[in-house]
Amino acid sequence: MKKHNFSAGPCILPETVLQKASEAVLNFNGIDLSLIEISHRSADFVAVMDKARALVKELLALPEGYSVLFLQGGASLEFLMAPYNLLSTEGTAGYLDTGAWSAKALKEARGLGKVEVLASSKDKGYNYIPKDYNLPSGLDYLHCTSNNTIYGTQFKDFPETDSLLVCDMSSDIFSRELDFSKFDLVYAGAQKNMGPAGTTLVIVKEEILGKIDRDIPSMLDYQVHLSKDSMFNTPPVFAVYVSMLTLEWLKDLGGVKAIEKINEEKASLLYAEIDRNPLFKGFAEVADRSLMNVTFTLTDDTHKDLFDRLWNDAGISGIKGHRSVGGYRASIYNAMPLSSVQALIDVMQAFEQQVN
Amino acid sequence: MKKHNFSAGPCILPETVLQKASEAVLNFNGIDLSLIEISHRSADFVAVMDKARALVKELLALPEGYSVLFLQGGASLEFLMAPYNLLSTEGTAGYLDTGAWSAKALKEARGLGKVEVLASSKDKGYNYIPKDYNLPSGLDYLHCTSNNTIYGTQFKDFPETDSLLVCDMSSDIFSRELDFSKFDLVYAGAQKNMGPAGTTLVIVKEEILGKIDRDIPSMLDYQVHLSKDSMFNTPPVFAVYVSMLTLEWLKDLGGVKAIEKINEEKASLLYAEIDRNPLFKGFAEVADRSLMNVTFTLTDDTHKDLFDRLWNDAGISGIKGHRSVGGYRASIYNAMPLSSVQALIDVMQAFEQQVN
Repeated sequence: MKKHNFSAGPCILPETVLQKASEAVLNFNGIDLSLIEISHRSADFVAVMDKARALVKELLALPEGYSVLFLQGGASLEFLMAPYNLLSTEGTAGYLDTGAWSAKALKEARGLGKVEVLASSKDKGYNYIPKDYNLPSGLDYLHCTSNNTIYGTQFKDFPETDSLLVCDMSSDIFSRELDFSKFDLVYAGAQKNMGPAGTTLVIVKEEILGKIDRDIPSMLDYQVHLSKDSMFNTPPVFAVYVSMLTLEWLKDLGGVKAIEKINEEKASLLYAEIDRNPLFKGFAEVADRSLMNVTFTLTDDTHKDLFDRLWNDAGISGIKGHRSVGGYRASIYNAMPLSSVQALIDVMQAFEQQVN
Repeated sequence: MKKHNFSAGPCILPETVLQKASEAVLNFNGIDLSLIEISHRSADFVAVMDKARALVKELLALPEGYSVLFLQGGASLEFLMAPYNLLSTEGTAGYLDTGAWSAKALKEARGLGKVEVLASSKDKGYNYIPKDYNLPSGLDYLHCTSNNTIYGTQFKDFPETDSLLVCDMSSDIFSRELDFSKFDLVYAGAQKNMGPAGTTLVIVKEEILGKIDRDIPSMLDYQVHLSKDSMFNTPPVFAVYVSMLTLEWLKDLGGVKAIEKINEEKASLLYAEIDRNPLFKGFAEVADRSLMNVTFTLTDDTHKDLFDRLWNDAGISGIKGHRSVGGYRASIYNAMPLSSVQALIDVMQAFEQQVN
């Protein structure tokens, strides 16, 4: 029996994608060779890379002048690449601190130059998105984290700024329609809505690059990677291929507009149960609730063993909360079917009946 | 029909490894979840990471005090990490320039500090390994590239130095027995003898770290990765798993000692044919010939179409030489069976008969 996989990431991928990926490991494109034993410069793989980039542009409706890269090192390496490419030696970067990942991002920027934390929700354990703060003019860039996986908060509106806007969208890219012309640099580790761990999607407005006075090491230089079409060094072939398959799946489903509707439906069902059921309490402030990561706690921890047994018996996995928040976290990324969300709601209701 | 896969990398992997990898993408360890949709912090994957590191230590007979990391970014990112971790702001790094990859490595070091190129074989198109050169004392480290994939040259003996010895072993690690106590830092992209593209093996003598005056960004700091057992950020799960499978395969085969014997047999058969057959000429100097990449040209290019047709008809793939050398390159990594080498030799002999 297939589990109900609520893992926060790496996380659930579409079943058809897993089938095709499994086949390609044995025989890719019918060429009698495995996907993972051919040259990344072969026509077969170059076509995969080209298609993956084209699908990103199409699905996100990227404006002219934006380019797409598939790199390695996850968002963690982007925390360093963003300031290396955009923060001048005399300039200042602004960061919005909405959780552990934002904090890690700004730490790397501090190693390279001047950083201002313009707002933080640390005072309340990161359970909300700051809204009232002043944005200074003249920043080299402003950095934000669109969805905070650990806490289950999500930006609904992005800041209006005259600086470059940089966004870590690791855990909600491809989940909702956004106007990408507002962003100058977007990055995302693949392992939520796009594919397996091992590749990082980077979307960059080309005209912002090459403007600062810093020497950039080759592997950290977006312009180097752009000039080689993401093949400056050997790309993570398997991760890029599975990402391409997942993007194809999303396109066949109707694209980002269609998945956003499904995501809203899944999330509203689950949040409705949390709000209705007296045994549960949501962690994030209602206005900032994430459509991807639903965080909640028990109102009475003495029933914990019973609840844990019930969801475990129902074939649910991966809903333990992050250690820094506790409680539970149901990650309901794009590939999560409504039926799995319903299975969790059924367990929550059975739990209520057994307690009463 | 399975091809005879002479690709230079990503390259041939053992058939049993591909089978197991394909299965794991559907159902990993019988847990009813795919390998690529579970948390990297799950017990099942932590066991994979631990086993992969233990196999590296065992197969290479690493001395006490050496640690193993699985990172991302390939050798190309290591070109930067090595100087970031080992080159002090006032110190000097020495490089042996034996090809395009050495040259790329020293370029990144130059961005961080003082670099001396102590020897180069560029004068003869990198067809040999320099031997007579002076090694100054007091270098922060000496860097070499053990096997030069493009040219088919390989260090048989490594330089004796009082400096730290850093080696890029991307294309011949696990192919021959070496005394690793001579090395302080070794790195290798997985995609030759270890696994698919997407992870980088790093072997480091722990006591050499933390000795310099440089601020190191987190993702480039070996000590950060060591402190988190290669899980400072989400590791490339699939690539690490397939590497573990390949190392298990190597262990079952008898380990590095056993594969070295097979590699010597394969290479000597192929080099013997190149030397015997008047239609072929080896590219690398005989003393420095690689056991991994056999480079050769036709003595008379007017027969090129015939030869290309013959190997193509025999199901041989991936033997076109690198554009900077031309001719042919047969990469005969660990997983390449003797039967495929024999198939190529048969083609070379049939070619001779048809020309005469």
